[in-house]
Amino acid sequence: MDQALHFVTVATRDLDAARRFYGALGWQAKLDVPGEIVFYRSAAGQLLGFFDAGAFARDQGEASPPHVAGVTLSHNVGSRAEVVALVERMAAAGGEVRKAPQEGEFGGVFHAHVADPNGLVWEVAHNPAWSVLPDGSVMLG
Amino acid sequence: MDQALHFVTVATRDLDAARRFYGALGWQAKLDVPGEIVFYRSAAGQLLGFFDAGAFARDQGEASPPHVAGVTLSHNVGSRAEVVALVERMAAAGGEVRKAPQEGEFGGVFHAHVADPNGLVWEVAHNPAWSVLPDGSVMLG
Repeated sequence: MDQALHFVTVATRDLDAARRFYGALGWQAKLDVPGEIVFYRSAAGQLLGFFDAGAFARDQGEASPPHVAGVTLSHNVGSRAEVVALVERMAAAGGEVRKAPQEGEFGGVFHAHVADPNGLVWEVAHNPAWSVLPDGSVMLG
Repeated sequence: MDQALHFVTVATRDLDAARRFYGALGWQAKLDVPGEIVFYRSAAGQLLGFFDAGAFARDQGEASPPHVAGVTLSHNVGSRAEVVALVERMAAAGGEVRKAPQEGEFGGVFHAHVADPNGLVWEVAHNPAWSVLPDGSVMLG
């Protein structure tokens, strides 16, 4: 199995709230099917999809629309000041700050947690030990 | 905010089971911290991390280790036969087939759902309408 993640699909109770939130952050939808799903590019060869929670449940054979839980998505920025600025922007766009910008438990990381309007938690982080090489390899430490 | 997803982090109750499962699928860990977290490359510039569920809960300020819910990860392959073959391989590695390979609701997709040993659901799909351009743009339909 190739190590490739082509779609990340999140059960979403309020698609319009998701559209407003990510739109306010400057995101451009790749494909938007009203009432059903909206996709955004999240990496090369990858889309992040917000899928109507009722349709998600039917597709999974679940009885009721799930709440997203047990997963976080991380977005890294270049400085602590950028963490603070992005968290403010996400809060202004309707995000809920669950952890204010602060030192993380792991060496040198400065981060915050912000939930989107449907409860999907983003970590916004500055990690001086993290970098991406031109071939897409991630360096940590 | 750049449209970039740098880490996908999944609360994981049994890290060793995750290591065995992804290892059996041929995945190579990028960084492995026993008892804490194991990271795999999942796209250019992106890591998929399996994070001890207790540590995940503490990091989130949650009272108890969560079960992952309301999210699926998708892996696309080149044919229906490859869907069937990969699902068999995932089941042999300890995955639970929750939806046997079948036609999807959306035009032309042939897919299956397999939960990893910690309940993270993978969709394995063949979608003739999906492709990735050299610049990483995803085409759908």
